[in-house]
Amino acid sequence: METNKIIIIGGNAAGPAAAAKAKRFNPNVEVLMIESEEYISTGTCEIPYVLSGEIDSYKNVVIYSPEKFKEEKGVDVLTNHSVESIDKKKKEIIVIDKIKGKNFSAPYDKLILCTGSKANKLEIYLPYKNVFNLKRISDLLKIKNFISDNNVKKVLVVGSGYIGLETAEALKLLGLSVAVFDIAELPFPKSEFEIQNLILECLKNNKVDFYGDAKNIQIISEDEKIKSIKIDGRILEFDLVITAVGVHPNVHLAKEAGLDIGSTGAIKVNNKLKTCNNHIYAAGDNIEVINAITKKPDYIPLATIAHKAGHIAGENAAGGNVFFRPIITNIAVKIFDYYYAQVGLTANESEMNNLNYGTVSSVMPNLVTVMPESKKVFGKIIYDKSTKLILGASFFGGKEVSGYADLISSFVYNKMKANLLSNIDYNYTPPLSPMINLLSVLGRKLNGFI
Amino acid sequence: METNKIIIIGGNAAGPAAAAKAKRFNPNVEVLMIESEEYISTGTCEIPYVLSGEIDSYKNVVIYSPEKFKEEKGVDVLTNHSVESIDKKKKEIIVIDKIKGKNFSAPYDKLILCTGSKANKLEIYLPYKNVFNLKRISDLLKIKNFISDNNVKKVLVVGSGYIGLETAEALKLLGLSVAVFDIAELPFPKSEFEIQNLILECLKNNKVDFYGDAKNIQIISEDEKIKSIKIDGRILEFDLVITAVGVHPNVHLAKEAGLDIGSTGAIKVNNKLKTCNNHIYAAGDNIEVINAITKKPDYIPLATIAHKAGHIAGENAAGGNVFFRPIITNIAVKIFDYYYAQVGLTANESEMNNLNYGTVSSVMPNLVTVMPESKKVFGKIIYDKSTKLILGASFFGGKEVSGYADLISSFVYNKMKANLLSNIDYNYTPPLSPMINLLSVLGRKLNGFI
Repeated sequence: METNKIIIIGGNAAGPAAAAKAKRFNPNVEVLMIESEEYISTGTCEIPYVLSGEIDSYKNVVIYSPEKFKEEKGVDVLTNHSVESIDKKKKEIIVIDKIKGKNFSAPYDKLILCTGSKANKLEIYLPYKNVFNLKRISDLLKIKNFISDNNVKKVLVVGSGYIGLETAEALKLLGLSVAVFDIAELPFPKSEFEIQNLILECLKNNKVDFYGDAKNIQIISEDEKIKSIKIDGRILEFDLVITAVGVHPNVHLAKEAGLDIGSTGAIKVNNKLKTCNNHIYAAGDNIEVINAITKKPDYIPLATIAHKAGHIAGENAAGGNVFFRPIITNIAVKIFDYYYAQVGLTANESEMNNLNYGTVSSVMPNLVTVMPESKKVFGKIIYDKSTKLILGASFFGGKEVSGYADLISSFVYNKMKANLLSNIDYNYTPPLSPMINLLSVLGRKLNGFI
Repeated sequence: METNKIIIIGGNAAGPAAAAKAKRFNPNVEVLMIESEEYISTGTCEIPYVLSGEIDSYKNVVIYSPEKFKEEKGVDVLTNHSVESIDKKKKEIIVIDKIKGKNFSAPYDKLILCTGSKANKLEIYLPYKNVFNLKRISDLLKIKNFISDNNVKKVLVVGSGYIGLETAEALKLLGLSVAVFDIAELPFPKSEFEIQNLILECLKNNKVDFYGDAKNIQIISEDEKIKSIKIDGRILEFDLVITAVGVHPNVHLAKEAGLDIGSTGAIKVNNKLKTCNNHIYAAGDNIEVINAITKKPDYIPLATIAHKAGHIAGENAAGGNVFFRPIITNIAVKIFDYYYAQVGLTANESEMNNLNYGTVSSVMPNLVTVMPESKKVFGKIIYDKSTKLILGASFFGGKEVSGYADLISSFVYNKMKANLLSNIDYNYTPPLSPMINLLSVLGRKLNGFI
């Protein structure tokens, strides 16, 4: 049966990748992308840098307008249209024009769900008007407007994962007073404990007040706005609260259509990114992927993965036959004057997966110490005790952490033993790279040489 | 036969590594290190950054004084002592105390030659008093003194390899007018031609005048100093000239002792770094190494290799049994606001080795283009057409080039096919790493996907 029409639901990251790829792979197919908000093709990861002002305008992170996307990629786009339901038998969807308030049905040969993720919300903060998320451009604009319309001086960020930390830094750059709450004792609870301590120090140095173990709090409000919060017997005043406590897959449409949902809560897909229905694919922050290290289903909402998955789903929906590989997580984040990168499993995740793991860590200068820009970089490798294969690694230091993590990612992919890191020839030049590379030291430690 | 005394000739890079390692491996052995100049254990690669003032004082790049080296490493040190000759039969050397002008003999059980390299000199510049090299601390001090004692405004750097380019940048930072001559048409002639063009542009942007094809020059001198140089019919005035036209292995002592010299002109050693004489080892910029890619002897004077070789020679001389692996060259250099890294073979070197090679190249943003610090990074991969294994790669861009080169170095070491670069999961965060990694694009190009 020929595919004449592909509909893609969601126009943020995976959606545009899927749409453009489908049209490129099969120019005869008609492709329609439907987005419930105003903008498509937005750089979500860049939003904190628009908040801080490092990127001038939110317009810079909207990569395509619907018109430009049609012109350059040949894809029809509907914005401000949400999809109400999927009729798998009829192979059609019910679409609502949010502006006009009208419903209509649209038939498809293949459907690709790119509905992404939604920000988690905390019940306790829900009632108040000065509480926001920072996930979409609409959130960003709300926060920017709130800051410029009100005399905002003190901000609370709830959650110290990477979005929380990026948000805290952005607000600090705006000259605001910033506090961060986390229910864990230390910031960035998903990172290695050594790094949690380094981040705590980093926050302190940058005058961000961190409150760990922030479980028992009491909100004092006025005019439906949070005025202050009582924590550990102290009362802290806030003008604005931003919650950043993770995301969850946006699967309500898939659920209602009776598609299989995996144990992670995300849509179950096969290695061609097809759902349990033969005519429906899914890609992006709404699907579960296979973790290359645990070999188990995992939920890893990352832009790079969404982008890759979009391409695969788009090609396959248009008649292609490409596989989506298991994923090695590789995450980086800037935290004030430091950078963090984490690849594969953490020690905690290895523990939870009942792996027979060992760890080795070290601190080295990232440049020879006599260079004025030299600072320390921390590295930790998690390895399988029996195979010596790398399970994961974390780094905290300067810009070099990105390359370190990518090299480790390639070691994991290539199934190279961890100790071989000491055999690699690393480059060295005083203003860029160290005489003795941290990775080499970690490899030597694993060899028992030091 | 027991080893009671190890003598190491040369105290710069390989020497201290060999000495310290020998003593650590066998604390009972007596270790003496002899250096012909005033300083030992100097950071040669850092010298341009002392010239520029980025490193405050030359004292910061002298890592150990003889006293501290004795105290911390247990090694006896003689500075300002040169070695006149080696008597292999008697197993003793003749040493000259350069201060007192006295000779004496010193017996050894094992000898390690760490005599390093010497700067190449150009006949035509030899007679003049305002011409210097920049290789050792003594050279640096001469140049610094010359600049502060004379009204230096215009400097000529002869040679545009990495030392030449680093020197040009350092002089520019001092506020001097700088010209660079090279007999090749474009700067950094050992790099890929695309990069030579990028460097030319970089020099132009930084107001360094580059004169390529600088073969027919005519020197006009006064009081034994170069005053101006006639080139291409133009007369250029210079107050100071620094020549940076490569180095050659310092092997005169080894030659006179009848040790084997390889086809590269450097000392021939086996994979334990032993010379043809059973009691003499060699390590550092005076030896030839095996190139891991061509499998042939090669001359690769790099600090990191000298350091590694020193450790191996030291351990083996003290009774150990460790191997020196073939080398994958991995070189980096900062050129004003850009960074260059090159690993393995260049296209030219592949050509000269009669390899069946192909190349693939691309230019990508090193960060998403909306980030204010985003700039372009160029990458080129040289691969074996039949095996698809990587022969080498070059990068020119921001700080990421170091990590890119190290990852390629690990691919070469691990014998991974070049196209697999597209399968690696790279990290992404706007202020650090790009959404679509250059290495991934190069891998996809090799796969014929783009």
